[in-house]
Amino acid sequence: MHRARRARVAPSRASSVDLDSFEDFLLDKQNELCDALERVDGSGARFCRDYWERGSKSDGYGITRVLEGGDVFEKAAANVSIIRGTLTPERARAMSSRGRAEIDPKGGQEYEACALSLVFHPRSPMVPTFRADVRRFRVGGKAWYGGGADLTPYYLFDEDAEEFHDKYRAVCDSYDINAEASEVYAACKDWCDEYFYIPARREHRGVGGVFFDDLEDDTGSGSDGARVRGVTDAESFTRAIAEEWLDSYLPIVDKRRDEAYGEAQERWHHQRRGRYIEFNLLYDRGVRFGLDGGRIEAIMVSAPPRVRWDYDVNPEPGSEEHRLVETLRAPREWAKK
Amino acid sequence: MHRARRARVAPSRASSVDLDSFEDFLLDKQNELCDALERVDGSGARFCRDYWERGSKSDGYGITRVLEGGDVFEKAAANVSIIRGTLTPERARAMSSRGRAEIDPKGGQEYEACALSLVFHPRSPMVPTFRADVRRFRVGGKAWYGGGADLTPYYLFDEDAEEFHDKYRAVCDSYDINAEASEVYAACKDWCDEYFYIPARREHRGVGGVFFDDLEDDTGSGSDGARVRGVTDAESFTRAIAEEWLDSYLPIVDKRRDEAYGEAQERWHHQRRGRYIEFNLLYDRGVRFGLDGGRIEAIMVSAPPRVRWDYDVNPEPGSEEHRLVETLRAPREWAKK
Repeated sequence: MHRARRARVAPSRASSVDLDSFEDFLLDKQNELCDALERVDGSGARFCRDYWERGSKSDGYGITRVLEGGDVFEKAAANVSIIRGTLTPERARAMSSRGRAEIDPKGGQEYEACALSLVFHPRSPMVPTFRADVRRFRVGGKAWYGGGADLTPYYLFDEDAEEFHDKYRAVCDSYDINAEASEVYAACKDWCDEYFYIPARREHRGVGGVFFDDLEDDTGSGSDGARVRGVTDAESFTRAIAEEWLDSYLPIVDKRRDEAYGEAQERWHHQRRGRYIEFNLLYDRGVRFGLDGGRIEAIMVSAPPRVRWDYDVNPEPGSEEHRLVETLRAPREWAKK
Repeated sequence: MHRARRARVAPSRASSVDLDSFEDFLLDKQNELCDALERVDGSGARFCRDYWERGSKSDGYGITRVLEGGDVFEKAAANVSIIRGTLTPERARAMSSRGRAEIDPKGGQEYEACALSLVFHPRSPMVPTFRADVRRFRVGGKAWYGGGADLTPYYLFDEDAEEFHDKYRAVCDSYDINAEASEVYAACKDWCDEYFYIPARREHRGVGGVFFDDLEDDTGSGSDGARVRGVTDAESFTRAIAEEWLDSYLPIVDKRRDEAYGEAQERWHHQRRGRYIEFNLLYDRGVRFGLDGGRIEAIMVSAPPRVRWDYDVNPEPGSEEHRLVETLRAPREWAKK
């Protein structure tokens, strides 16, 4: 494992030779998100800014930004990480098997993986958790994009899930070579439902959203076997997803932040946050990748702040808690438009 | 995954055709432990008793017993599970590669795995968490034993760790064909240190104890390549480990239960409990095995009740919290005698 050398200063962006436009986009977006969240929170709580390097800067670096103890956001984190290295044969084989012809399955090629990922954990059980990321992987002169956004409610307001999905459907449609069919949205929505699933609980983690990976930069159809096809421009689409984050989430925060709740609802909130942890540690590919050479605190920063595990919690039929769990058993079509 | 059919009744032990003496031992020990914990807790909190079956009783069953919200024990769980099935080729290969000549690497043999496992999470940060188990695996007319006991403190009292290790060393020595050399203890102690390690944190989970597996029933030396060798009688040794549990742990509870602590200590306690979860979900073989066909609530019952994840907690040098973390960086020889 590489140890992170850390300093609580921002990297000198002007002097860096490695910055490109997408990396710039991630860094700018990170700051924009943090500024916006501080304003919405309104408590005076601020995001810290931890800059860390992976060995040396040429191996990669990251900026971890976290706000803790806000009024609206009990914990909110936005991370940028840029990881560079040489593909191991094992990873190269796995990647070339996913249809990336540019990757030599014997390994040895230089790669770069950069990402902005975030998770916002509100204090109120009435406000859903929001998770999102965008990422780019480069090797052999090619780039692939991934990303997404999804919502994890603790109490279910159907209209929130519907409006959330409507917005991402609109973004997907505007980059779909066949917008009428909404195939890009359908593929990203299904992938999200499939990815954020906890087999041992037979539950989806939340009401989903969109998720995509392996989107090629220079074709509209992705590589052979690509799961999401028909995107007109991979990088622009990926940026557009990130541009939608605040617009898709802040109206929900605004609508639900003043809903009343009591101790029983808070207990349920903390119990359900346990599912969030279970998913991240048992199943999340990003967490497993990050643990293998990343900075653990930049990964576990996504964990909710207060969590409970009580034994065998089974909500009463007819309760809102029961309705949530039953809804999460199977994916639902939320988009209306 | 098999779904558990559950009923809050005890199995009718007299009428079962499958009980044997070791299974009886597990069931009796489970009740003895629960009775003792209820007495020590003294709050009137009681262990529930949930009987569940895996498909049908011939596929296996379990009894989950949990006490929640006690004065001394915030959560305490003791589980018995008896799982029967047919070895898959994949599992058979893994097992035969660990030196079990009786296992056909092609799979297809009937097996039985039975275990009693427990974890006690005290309310006070001054009282350590205690985890322990004993288990037997049978296939092809042979049996292998495993088990152990280990301590996870949140504040470190050296003498508690020393006395705890002394007691297990004495048990190990009394089943060691060469007691003078304490090789059984040394092997079990090292295995425990190695097993309960969190690579991503570069920390051991606690101060260890003993851990062993693959101990054969009919030889004093274990199978070829066995890690723990020189045990005079595997089943008796395994039972003796379980007989030591209360004697090794309750004196520590008694000594530390009235130590004063405040909110800062409690916050640290809940932060450290996060490590317990991280280990269980990221690394524990038993949890991964259990999720693949077991009852999730019987597995996650081991989770601490209240847990926190705060970002990048780094105790002040010179503090007790710092001393704990530094101590857990590398195994230490605790046994004095």
